[in-house]
Amino acid sequence: MHNGEIPPCDRILLAHGSGGLLMRNLIEKFFLRYLCSPELLPLDDAAELSLESTSIAFTTDMFVVKPIFFPGGDIGSLAISGTVNDLLMKGARPGSLSLGLILEEGFPLAHLERILESIRQTCDRAGVRIVTGDTKVVGRGEADGVYINTAGVGCILPQVKVSGANARPGDAVIVSGSVGRHGIAVMAERNGLHLRVPVLSDAMPMTQAVLPLLERFPKALHVLRDPTRGGVAATLNEIASSSGVSIVLTESTVPIDDTVSAVCDLLGFDPLYLPCEGRFIAVVEPSAAADIIAFLTSLDDCRDAAIIGEVTGSPSGEVHLLTASGVLKILDLPTGEMLPRIC
Amino acid sequence: MHNGEIPPCDRILLAHGSGGLLMRNLIEKFFLRYLCSPELLPLDDAAELSLESTSIAFTTDMFVVKPIFFPGGDIGSLAISGTVNDLLMKGARPGSLSLGLILEEGFPLAHLERILESIRQTCDRAGVRIVTGDTKVVGRGEADGVYINTAGVGCILPQVKVSGANARPGDAVIVSGSVGRHGIAVMAERNGLHLRVPVLSDAMPMTQAVLPLLERFPKALHVLRDPTRGGVAATLNEIASSSGVSIVLTESTVPIDDTVSAVCDLLGFDPLYLPCEGRFIAVVEPSAAADIIAFLTSLDDCRDAAIIGEVTGSPSGEVHLLTASGVLKILDLPTGEMLPRIC
Repeated sequence: MHNGEIPPCDRILLAHGSGGLLMRNLIEKFFLRYLCSPELLPLDDAAELSLESTSIAFTTDMFVVKPIFFPGGDIGSLAISGTVNDLLMKGARPGSLSLGLILEEGFPLAHLERILESIRQTCDRAGVRIVTGDTKVVGRGEADGVYINTAGVGCILPQVKVSGANARPGDAVIVSGSVGRHGIAVMAERNGLHLRVPVLSDAMPMTQAVLPLLERFPKALHVLRDPTRGGVAATLNEIASSSGVSIVLTESTVPIDDTVSAVCDLLGFDPLYLPCEGRFIAVVEPSAAADIIAFLTSLDDCRDAAIIGEVTGSPSGEVHLLTASGVLKILDLPTGEMLPRIC
Repeated sequence: MHNGEIPPCDRILLAHGSGGLLMRNLIEKFFLRYLCSPELLPLDDAAELSLESTSIAFTTDMFVVKPIFFPGGDIGSLAISGTVNDLLMKGARPGSLSLGLILEEGFPLAHLERILESIRQTCDRAGVRIVTGDTKVVGRGEADGVYINTAGVGCILPQVKVSGANARPGDAVIVSGSVGRHGIAVMAERNGLHLRVPVLSDAMPMTQAVLPLLERFPKALHVLRDPTRGGVAATLNEIASSSGVSIVLTESTVPIDDTVSAVCDLLGFDPLYLPCEGRFIAVVEPSAAADIIAFLTSLDDCRDAAIIGEVTGSPSGEVHLLTASGVLKILDLPTGEMLPRIC
């Protein structure tokens, strides 16, 4: 057991989680190779960070998406995007991320490498670094390949005050792009649907759109939220509930890609409940809405941005949908689970 | 699916992870009931924190311990202790923690409540708060009950400079208490061993010992590390490697409880490789070692603290064990896995 030899292997062994030689090998040959940063390198129990300010955002996300590789992304790019976006939604500049992994015994090391490379690329795009991490290995049948946790910290930008509780009657509701692509991309891959035009997940870190938005319109932005699980419908319900307002959503104005619409029609999904992983909802001062749309649509990542609704005073906590046929109906929180393990 | 009714149940359903009504119910009736904090309450995508300084420690840990309840603790108290201790080992005052959960479909809600209550109590003892969280649900057979991630941030104390790379020849090596209890407690519970005197896990947040230690001896402390996976042997090897020094450990001076010794003798475990979850290794200025031991042994949590070894200059990166019989042998990193899912 202590003889210093490492057996050659191309899969994760229980001993990779032992705190011993195989684990050190995993850290040096895999984690440090892809994710080396000055903060990670000392391999201390915690990373030491020097922040720009004392007002920070702190967030955590678990990722259990199935399958782990899907059109437009994988569990690695999804994890980094999700945590970066959560920091942005709090008005913070994403800075340092932690990476926690649960690996199932037998997981191919080639898959781990592919995920780490994807994490590296997404971190580069988002301007963030992995500064600390932890990996545990569980036996066969005790997990499903790999689960990821990413937590993150970032400094909140000066003058920015965004919160789910800050929507006010009269505010405009904006979405940054077409909705539902992530949900359809993962669902199609999982179920072996062969789409003539493949739907790529929208998963991406939104740094390049949201940071300049925060800098140009610090006071006009009241709420920022990314419509992940439960989609636009769940997110608007959370905002209405936290702010004690009502929101009217105009169905015809919500940008939806044709292929996403077609798959939804075919399979009976409502795109308003499908998760996005690279889109945000902004509730903004009405006088600034047109300028914000003009700015967003000038960016590659937000070409389809649109005003999709309005905040009203009452009934508090409710979201109403003005359908394409002119009917006003309540848009509820989902009560069941349409798409388990979608993120 | 959107009819607003919640089915009564005493177990986790896939829909608890949906972003819908059942998830909101889980958050309000369970998470906020046990873990309510001003930072968590807005339920935004990230928590907003005001720190005392810009020099912080940031850490993450995954917990997959099996069984989830064991003598002296459970996966909840273990998670909080582990992350709090990692921040302390970097010379930081533990402040805010995140909580990420992966729940298996069918997991009893009563177990979730017991774990949340344990998390609450351990947070109180450690003086920290859960400020942000995320929960995912996976299908039956895709996890083993519950897995936890905790990440944490804390401000580094002024004048403190501890790192695994800071051990110097001549330094004394101290352990804060008897070793190996956590490993034996979990292993005995998992295997149904009936010990006449039960071994309780040592898992605990070490705030009450380490913070005053950092305040009294800021400059004499060179390295702080908690000997978790791989135990004292792995931790000393990491220190020797990071600092480019050699360490001589004197076997007879390592405090080990009688029952732990007896179980190790019986089953062939080496207590130096067993994980602790409420102990630390300190590498200290030799002139301060006696004062540090006097201070530690005056505390309830560290009554058995002892000097167990010494740092020497070479051979760089090696740890040597001076056995009870006077033989000097190399103490390696473990290469296999003695105790999977021990934390």
